[in-house]
Amino acid sequence: MMRSRFQQGLDDLRTRLLRMGGLAEQAVDRACQAYIDRDLTRCHLVLEGETQINLIEREIDELAFDLLAMQQPMAVDLRFILAVTKINSDLERVGDQAVNIAERVMDMVELPKVELPVDIARMAAAASAMVRRALESFIEGKAELAQAVLEMDNVVDRMKDEAFITLVKGMNEHPETTRQALDALLIARNLERVADHATNIAEDVIFWVRGADVRHNIGPEAPVQTAVTDTH
Amino acid sequence: MMRSRFQQGLDDLRTRLLRMGGLAEQAVDRACQAYIDRDLTRCHLVLEGETQINLIEREIDELAFDLLAMQQPMAVDLRFILAVTKINSDLERVGDQAVNIAERVMDMVELPKVELPVDIARMAAAASAMVRRALESFIEGKAELAQAVLEMDNVVDRMKDEAFITLVKGMNEHPETTRQALDALLIARNLERVADHATNIAEDVIFWVRGADVRHNIGPEAPVQTAVTDTH
Repeated sequence: MMRSRFQQGLDDLRTRLLRMGGLAEQAVDRACQAYIDRDLTRCHLVLEGETQINLIEREIDELAFDLLAMQQPMAVDLRFILAVTKINSDLERVGDQAVNIAERVMDMVELPKVELPVDIARMAAAASAMVRRALESFIEGKAELAQAVLEMDNVVDRMKDEAFITLVKGMNEHPETTRQALDALLIARNLERVADHATNIAEDVIFWVRGADVRHNIGPEAPVQTAVTDTH
Repeated sequence: MMRSRFQQGLDDLRTRLLRMGGLAEQAVDRACQAYIDRDLTRCHLVLEGETQINLIEREIDELAFDLLAMQQPMAVDLRFILAVTKINSDLERVGDQAVNIAERVMDMVELPKVELPVDIARMAAAASAMVRRALESFIEGKAELAQAVLEMDNVVDRMKDEAFITLVKGMNEHPETTRQALDALLIARNLERVADHATNIAEDVIFWVRGADVRHNIGPEAPVQTAVTDTH
């Protein structure tokens, strides 16, 4: 009975984390679409969405806390709950990066429109995909999916480095576009940070899945876990 | 007996987190000193230090996990352990920011030295102090100290905004200094992020302390809390 309430709590935690992930990803996509369309409405949606993301972050932390306090979780559940609290923080910060991007876009919209040698849409798609896949790897408990996310990080890093080089070159050749180029450069950096958060999530998944496997397969810890569960 | 091993574990967790904080702070200080002295040796120390910081991060997470698995922690200890794992992540990322700064300095040292209208040392001192105080507020369990850290964040944000404005102006007036100015601007941004991590830590402290307090003051859970305090 107690166990089933606990299981329900774990399911609830998973659902909320997925919702959090969906909101964070949406925020990044919206901010980048705002960049492409010079669209202030979408910028404001991103800023407003932050409040909701922060709220869900706290809810998830409180739920994780309650679950840990409710009963002695088994090793595998414990690792899952700890991973959720870590991933939760990263998703909240993905949302923060979206806000930073929206703020840069709001700055850019005030300035004359110029052509910039940077493909923000492509970078955003890559960073967003990393967040989505990192979260999928967690939900499915697949370390190999998480590993693939780690490898994508290099691609985004390279895009950012290229953006950096071409934008600085552009600044020197057309000093009148410095501010716009700087905004674009900072947006590229924010997207790199989104990718970094996806990488952090993937690392936590590997830590969680591998750890769970290790503890599952070795003898000595299994009886301890059983004994502990009995006290509830 | 079991309880005292658990208490020892909590002490150990606290000690390691302080060590982690010391290393992260040292990394930021070193990276900024490297900026001031154009000192590649210090840059390399920061890069090498990252490995150690990452190692301690994992050790702290494993210890937190073991403590949660060892026995059913009481609410106050549970909140403490969860706060440690969150603060741990933030400190590791402070270390990452120091690495980013060191990499920017390594880029700058290759370029001609120019005077830049930005006081990186002052920003670094402020950001570093925020990290130190946030950690102190945690160790002493004082929400009011954490609150003071939140207020310092505005100061660092303002410094970064000013740096942004003067550096962009400098770029336009002296296009030949664009790359150096950009490096300085990104360093200012990294320091702003260090301050953000300090803010995150302070928020977690408030969450942890207040949560503990709230549970202290309401009826049903109060006896539990008293029992916990007695064992300390």
